[in-house]
Amino acid sequence: MPGNILYAQSGGVTAVINASAWGVISAARKSRRVGKIYAGKDGILGILHEQLIDVGAESPRELRKLMHTPGGAFGSCRLKLPDPKKDDRHYRRLIEVFRAHNIGYFLYNGGNDSQDTTNKIAKFCQNAGLKTVCNGIPKTVDNDLVETDCCPGFGSVAKYIATTVAETRRDVASMSRTSTKLFIIEVMGRHAGWIAAAGGLAGEPGGPIMVAFPEIPHSPGKFIAAVRARIAKHGYCCVVASEGIVDRKGRFLSERDTKDSFSHAQLGGVAGVLAEECKTALGVKYHWALADYMQRSARHLASLTDLEQAEAVGRVATELAIKGVGGIMPAIIRTNECPYRWQVKPVSLAKVANRERHMPRKYISKDNYYITAACRRYLTPLISGETYPPYRDGIPDFANLKLASVKKLLSDWRI
Amino acid sequence: MPGNILYAQSGGVTAVINASAWGVISAARKSRRVGKIYAGKDGILGILHEQLIDVGAESPRELRKLMHTPGGAFGSCRLKLPDPKKDDRHYRRLIEVFRAHNIGYFLYNGGNDSQDTTNKIAKFCQNAGLKTVCNGIPKTVDNDLVETDCCPGFGSVAKYIATTVAETRRDVASMSRTSTKLFIIEVMGRHAGWIAAAGGLAGEPGGPIMVAFPEIPHSPGKFIAAVRARIAKHGYCCVVASEGIVDRKGRFLSERDTKDSFSHAQLGGVAGVLAEECKTALGVKYHWALADYMQRSARHLASLTDLEQAEAVGRVATELAIKGVGGIMPAIIRTNECPYRWQVKPVSLAKVANRERHMPRKYISKDNYYITAACRRYLTPLISGETYPPYRDGIPDFANLKLASVKKLLSDWRI
Repeated sequence: MPGNILYAQSGGVTAVINASAWGVISAARKSRRVGKIYAGKDGILGILHEQLIDVGAESPRELRKLMHTPGGAFGSCRLKLPDPKKDDRHYRRLIEVFRAHNIGYFLYNGGNDSQDTTNKIAKFCQNAGLKTVCNGIPKTVDNDLVETDCCPGFGSVAKYIATTVAETRRDVASMSRTSTKLFIIEVMGRHAGWIAAAGGLAGEPGGPIMVAFPEIPHSPGKFIAAVRARIAKHGYCCVVASEGIVDRKGRFLSERDTKDSFSHAQLGGVAGVLAEECKTALGVKYHWALADYMQRSARHLASLTDLEQAEAVGRVATELAIKGVGGIMPAIIRTNECPYRWQVKPVSLAKVANRERHMPRKYISKDNYYITAACRRYLTPLISGETYPPYRDGIPDFANLKLASVKKLLSDWRI
Repeated sequence: MPGNILYAQSGGVTAVINASAWGVISAARKSRRVGKIYAGKDGILGILHEQLIDVGAESPRELRKLMHTPGGAFGSCRLKLPDPKKDDRHYRRLIEVFRAHNIGYFLYNGGNDSQDTTNKIAKFCQNAGLKTVCNGIPKTVDNDLVETDCCPGFGSVAKYIATTVAETRRDVASMSRTSTKLFIIEVMGRHAGWIAAAGGLAGEPGGPIMVAFPEIPHSPGKFIAAVRARIAKHGYCCVVASEGIVDRKGRFLSERDTKDSFSHAQLGGVAGVLAEECKTALGVKYHWALADYMQRSARHLASLTDLEQAEAVGRVATELAIKGVGGIMPAIIRTNECPYRWQVKPVSLAKVANRERHMPRKYISKDNYYITAACRRYLTPLISGETYPPYRDGIPDFANLKLASVKKLLSDWRI
């Protein structure tokens, strides 16, 4: 009896994570070596609770809509598993579920933490003598995974932010004579300035667009001087501010008092802090926007490159698993920059787990507040190409899955 | 010698205000009764300073891009002219400029305040024996002009917010088990809940989407109870909150200490106030987004209906002016709801000036936090149809005008 396949989504979702799901599902369907196709409800949390979704019960028509549906269609979660050397109960439970449901292939779709989790599960399976092949599928809007040229999910948020800055700068420019002279848009990215850098694509060197990177410790004096210079020259200034900006002591400029379940600080509010600093010093009228979840779910403006890469990594991770190749994550390799060409190549999960890739210094301009030509060359292909969802009554027609449960075979899980 | 035409943009700009400009320009070009085509730089402020833009000097290729370029291509301003009975210096100066540049037609593209201004200028011209024909062109994302079924600019922001809510609700739904259970997106609209209502299009009665209208005084107890009920039923709640929400005493929930030049309070920050209220009462993790200028400049997701109407009102206002019909604003009349049909009909500026149209009570559900079926029927056609800008290197290819100045003939203006 061929093994069943189990796919799960992890961590913050993206505009194209479901394209990876579609890559998994379509590859699995084509193979005779795969039995049933299951998905974890709300990621690994659902697997622990033996809440599996029978993907085979979905209508093919709705499943195809995964290619243009944002969010995590099967649910995702933030759950960091303990170190198995200290507490292996989660891992033993996962293996129990894998055994009960004849899981031959496990595909886990996530970022840094999730690649680490997949790696640990793969090793645990191996040590337990289980033949389940475990692979990771990259996904993060933060673009901070190592060993891959870029991360699926990033290109789309980058396109959205670049386009949004191209649009809002025109709004601000047209009103600046009597109204707002400073506009700040706060974007995601945590410790890495990739998304903020994408906003710079809508500007030009010496122009009114400024980027505030988390890689550069915030200096109020230099920041205000940079804003002042742009307003003096152009009549207005637009700042793309990363949520992860830190002060010289490395403290987040605006840190809420809550932390997520990975013990990461929950960020948000930098734009307001920066705007007030400038207001006090410069006395200009400001506005600010907080893109928050808007940016990572904006499937209506996905990058075609990103969508194709998201589908490809899901498909390749599955094809390799079916061939028996486990413990890997398909990475995206840039084989040529102009014209842009890419291919997918597996890398060992051990190399990816728990490492973060920051913006290289050469991508940040000498004055610290803009991107370099090299950065533009890196980013441009990733946001290129448009792929629109179909609309119904003026709103995108997204997938509505049934999410039918697979019958439970085990007793409830309590820990 | 035929009269020249002068077009100016006023107040907050929109994703499609330049489509109205294109309607003016294309109609003016077709007529032998129009001489040169001018635009006011930064709206009426530029006209007062005799800063006119020679539209004829632009390349036809760039001008055609006005149909897909957001912001005010010629600049806009917030400037409320004084009551001419008390201080007529602005009006006398305008007439001086009109005379010097042989302005036969004046087209002013704006909202409530601007229609009032156009009306006053029209009367002043008449009293001064000037034959300049003055017409208004409607524009406001707030959808609060009277005598018209809808306002150009609104349909596009409504489509953007409806789509954004359709996308973010999927993001929140997929993460809610271990992460954010309450998401609040703050939208524009001032005293009118039209934009907030559009967010409701992405929901369904009894669903997790809630709308907080400025027409309904905020009751913290009822609001928190409504959020609690939705989280209990669906696991999460998404609130579309109008920036103009007021408390029972009619005070804005979050009012900054600055006012714009029309003496309107500058709004923004309601989402944070509401989120904190819920956090305290319910202890749930929340996120909030502030769409700010993003929503009104999002030409990448304009409504085709809105774009066509914006072009039509610009064109009709100009055609009527050329025929000698002045003192009017072209209104949009809904001649049939399903299938939707509309036409343009002139209404007297006197009827429109300084009046505000709020959401009718019948468009707000009985529980105060959702839209009715009648509201959905009203809104749906306005957000229908897609019209995408062309892209270049992944970013929309917007118009870049030269904005060449018309030679000044008068002495500088000081007041």
